[in-house]
Parts: sequence; structure tokens; C-alpha cells
Amino acid sequence: MANTSDLRTSFLKVYEILKSQLLADPAFEWTEDSRQWVDRMLDYNVPGGKLNRGLSVIDSYKLLREGNEPTEDEVFQASALGWCIGWLQAYFLVLDDIMDGSHTRRGQPCWFRVPKVGMIAVNDGVLLRNHIPRILKRHFREKPYYVDLLDLFNEVEFQTASGQMIDLITTLEGEKDLSKYSLSLHRRIVQYKTAYYSFYLPVACALLMAGENLDNHVDVKNILIDMGIYFQVQDDYLDCFGEPEKIGKIGTDIEDFKCSWLVVKALERCNEEQKKILLEHYGKADPDDVAKVKALYNNLDLQGVFEEYERKSYEKLTSSIEAHPSKAVQAVLKSFLAKIYKRQK
Amino acid sequence: MANTSDLRTSFLKVYEILKSQLLADPAFEWTEDSRQWVDRMLDYNVPGGKLNRGLSVIDSYKLLREGNEPTEDEVFQASALGWCIGWLQAYFLVLDDIMDGSHTRRGQPCWFRVPKVGMIAVNDGVLLRNHIPRILKRHFREKPYYVDLLDLFNEVEFQTASGQMIDLITTLEGEKDLSKYSLSLHRRIVQYKTAYYSFYLPVACALLMAGENLDNHVDVKNILIDMGIYFQVQDDYLDCFGEPEKIGKIGTDIEDFKCSWLVVKALERCNEEQKKILLEHYGKADPDDVAKVKALYNNLDLQGVFEEYERKSYEKLTSSIEAHPSKAVQAVLKSFLAKIYKRQK
Repeated sequence: MANTSDLRTSFLKVYEILKSQLLADPAFEWTEDSRQWVDRMLDYNVPGGKLNRGLSVIDSYKLLREGNEPTEDEVFQASALGWCIGWLQAYFLVLDDIMDGSHTRRGQPCWFRVPKVGMIAVNDGVLLRNHIPRILKRHFREKPYYVDLLDLFNEVEFQTASGQMIDLITTLEGEKDLSKYSLSLHRRIVQYKTAYYSFYLPVACALLMAGENLDNHVDVKNILIDMGIYFQVQDDYLDCFGEPEKIGKIGTDIEDFKCSWLVVKALERCNEEQKKILLEHYGKADPDDVAKVKALYNNLDLQGVFEEYERKSYEKLTSSIEAHPSKAVQAVLKSFLAKIYKRQK
Repeated sequence: MANTSDLRTSFLKVYEILKSQLLADPAFEWTEDSRQWVDRMLDYNVPGGKLNRGLSVIDSYKLLREGNEPTEDEVFQASALGWCIGWLQAYFLVLDDIMDGSHTRRGQPCWFRVPKVGMIAVNDGVLLRNHIPRILKRHFREKPYYVDLLDLFNEVEFQTASGQMIDLITTLEGEKDLSKYSLSLHRRIVQYKTAYYSFYLPVACALLMAGENLDNHVDVKNILIDMGIYFQVQDDYLDCFGEPEKIGKIGTDIEDFKCSWLVVKALERCNEEQKKILLEHYGKADPDDVAKVKALYNNLDLQGVFEEYERKSYEKLTSSIEAHPSKAVQAVLKSFLAKIYKRQK
């Protein structure tokens, strides 16, 4: 079997093919300048991440075939679907960075901060999004599951944008109101903003390629959503307690007044006095304020609470997975879980 | 036959129905806050314009049926498609205003200028766009032309975003270079940024509803694209020579260094001395600069050049329309042309 670095290399080759097809799309009359612009914009924003979401479409598809080696065409198609998720992610990130006024992303300036880009980045985000149906039409128009692919991407994008909306309006500047933050709000934001596109979408793509009807796989969807929520709780935990060298960034959830799992748990567990500390110091940029919040998290033993959550989540996910009738589907889900359990980054 | 104001009223009733369905979309778990947000955002951005594009889907569909009165369901469906174009337009306008740093739109502050909205408007634009496939899925999923509708909206959106891109990168601040401006660049921007979604899309929706295959109507598409280009040339002309009370705004194409049909024609017709005037004064905010450009336009008799263009365009469009084999299609195209010929606003 090919090793991880070979898989990445051949996956990146598919990116180059898709890009060159997009840059020659006959639905538009290209100018030299516009072709150059899109070429640079794609290279800057699409292939830079860990590629996990994209690669997992190929992994999942192979597992679903239970040892029947897929053809070269099929591997290409699974890769193309993986890249559609990469394009979707790039689209969200380009626009999120504008909305959050962020500075860096994946170790380089955010796209809208690049000289001469600025607010053109909004339209570039739109272009990234528009490339997805172009890729799907080119490579899947004749497949029986073509319309299901379009519906799937449309529904997941809608859910992600809706999750982003509740995140944005609950963090609205000037309305800092901790009383709104609850486990159910946290779950809702995370489920819609992250879990659908990061966990459900790759597996749903693989299921469609394998000829499955997604209506018959609501249980798989639910397990993946739960896994996505667990993944985001880890993210929230690592934002405060992870090692910056490992997670590759310095967390700012406390400063940004985020509806993090940690602040929700703190609110659940604190007494009146401790609550005053949160109300006074949460969501402020001053390191002294941040330190007071972190001290409170320690007093409330949130590390212990997280470890207990992690253990229980793993148990629950494992037993849900083992209850699934198909061994191939079990293998797909276990592969996802193994990649994230007790992750440090 | 119902009069124009009745048609508008019943069209607006369909908007209310579509909105209430979107606000109860089961693909998302709504909170009170998020439902309120989307409700207000839709009312602010979707129904405010002249509704021409949307209404023309219904008109066109009726004409294509050649006197066979459509059912109530069919009128509702044509209205829903009309509103999808309204949503698409709102999505483009919300994002364009952010990119252009505009202040007002349809007589009210741009959405991103509304207090507490700000950059959340980027995600609201994304939501508007995402509502289109939700509407299509709800009302057209079982139609034989469902997948063609999805492909159509995807292709037209891609073309519009691509046209917007060449517009943005040719007007790029700091690269003011009139030598790039030509009739072919102007045609390209206008064709992609405006003509596809404003002229072709409404008729294509009506053709799909009437059971037609769009591949058989490339000639109709070409005529509508030509009409869209003619419409935008009028727009460019009115920006400078129209009456602000009639067109509802004070044009700023000269100040904004726009690749307007007028500057392209001026470049074509000017001598070396006059060219210097353009190079020196085009794209500056000072009223003295603008006045010098306008004086040059007058010296070059651009009003006369425009009148000649308008006459010839009308003749050419009319003869193309009359060459079409179907009287019903001719009626659709003539109705579009009649609405825009010699318009003053």
C-alpha cells in the first residue's frame, strides 16, 4: 500500500489537473490577467492546509469497497471530491478571515491582507465557491448520483453558513452577554459551523460514489456529527491548554469572547463569586484579565472535566460505531475516530 | 388581464411565502435570534428593487405558453424562480457594496453600513446565495428539469463572479492604465457581469419550465446577451448624460475610473492632444477634472455616437429576433427589447 507521503503527492497532482481545467473553463472568456489572478489565488488559498478532509474521501471510499481495489478513474474522482471539500474550506476561510479581521492563516498573511487584494478577496471567496459546481459538472455530470452530490454540497454549505451566523451574532460586539452561553448553544454552533462539512461531508461523498442512498445513512451522519462536536471541544480545550508549538497558534478564545466549551463548562460549575470573575474578565484583551480566567478554569478543574468528557465521548462513539450493521462503514468511522482521539494538535 | 400593480402584489405575496419557508427550514435548528436576523436581512435586501428580472420570468413563461393560461401552481413556480433571481441579485449587491465601499443602495444605507451588521454582511451575502438551492429543492426537486435549474444557476453565478473579477482587477487602485480599456474588454465585463444573470437567466428559467432543452436555444441566449450589452451601454451613457432625478443616482463612473462605454469610445475617437486630457483627468474625484472629461465627451459628440449605436443596436436586435422560427420566443424577446429601448432611467 502507498505510504502517506505518496498519497499526498498524488492527491496534489489532482489539484494541479483541476486547477488547469478551471483556468480553461469554456463558460468564461479568460484574459491573461484574469487567468493569472485566479491561478495565484488558488495556489495561495486551496492546497496549503493539512488536507485531512480531502484525503479522507479517498480513504473512506477505499474502505467502503472492502478490498476491491478501485480503478484509477475512481481514485481520481474520489480525489476530485476531496478537493471540492478543500475548495469549500478555502472559501469559508478567506471570508471568515475578512469577517474576523484576522492577520495570519496557515503561517502566511490572510489573503485579503496581501497587497492589491484587499476587498477583492470577497469576490475571490465567491469564485472559490463557484469552482465546486464547475468541478462537479465536469467530472460527475453523467453519474447517477450527480444531482445528489449537488444537493449534498448545497445543504452542507447552507448549514455551515447558518452555524457561522449564530456564531457571529452571539459574539456581536457590544452585546457581550455571557448569560446566552450554554452547552446547547455551543453544540449548535459547532454542529452547524464545523461538523457537517468537516466530518459528515467527506463520508457522504464516499457513500454517494459507492452507490449508496444517503437517506439510508442517517445513523452514520449522527455519529459523524457527534465526532465533529467532540473534535471541536478538543479544539476549544487546546486553544487554552494546548502547547502553542504543537497547535501552531496562540489561542485567543478568552480574549475574543468566544462561546467556547470551556467557558460554558465554567459557567455550569462556578459559584456566584466565581461567576463575577468570569463576567468581569472574560472577553478582554489584557493579559491580566486572561490570566484571571485561566486561573478560574484551573480552580474549577476544567482539565479534569475535559479528560472525563474525552473518555466518555470515546466510549459512546465506539459503542455507536460497533452497533452499525456494516463492517465497512465501521472501518470508515473507526478510522476517523482513531485520527482524532487524544490528539495534541 | 391583471394590471402591473396586481402582478407586483401577487409576486410580493410569493416572497412572503418563500421567506417563511426559509425561516422554518428543517436543515437548520433555528434560534429566536437567528430567525429574527435572517428575517430582517431578507426584508432589507431582497424585495426593494424594481423587481424587473423576477417579474420577467412570469411574463416570459406566459408568452411561451401561447395563450394557454398557466395553472396557479405554475404561476407560483415561475414566481419562485423569479425570486431566486431576486435573491441572486441581492447576494451580488450586498457583496459588491462591501467591495466598492458604497454608502447607499436603493435609497437606504448599504446593508453592511447598518449598525451592528458590519462585516457580518459577508456571511449574509453567503446566506442569500444559499437560499437559492433551498428554494429550488423545495419547489422543483421532483421536476424533470431540476438538475438543469441547478446547473443553470451555478453556471450563471460563475459567469457573473468572473465578470466581476475582470471588472475589479482592471479598476485596481494604483494600476490606473487607460491603455487597457478597449471595446472588447468593455464587452467582456458587461457580458459576464450583467448580461447573463439579468437577461439570459430569466428567459432560461422560463424555457426550462416550458420543458425546453437549453442546448437548443443558443440563438436565444446570444440575442439576450446582445440585449444585455446594449442595456449596459445605456447604463454607462445615462451615468454621465442622464438626469439624476430620473436615474435615481448621481453617476460617478468618471471619478471611479470605470471601463465605461463612453471612455472606450472617447479613446477610439480622440487625437493625441485629447488623449492627454483623458490621461490627466479621468479617474479623479475633483469636480474640475470631471468637468474636463465631460467637455471632451461633448467635443467628441459622444451623445451623437450613442444615438447612432442605439439605433443600430435596435435594428440588429429586431432583425435577429424576427429571424427566430418561434413566434412565442419572438414575443418574449420583443417584450424585453420594448422595455429597454430608448429608456431614460
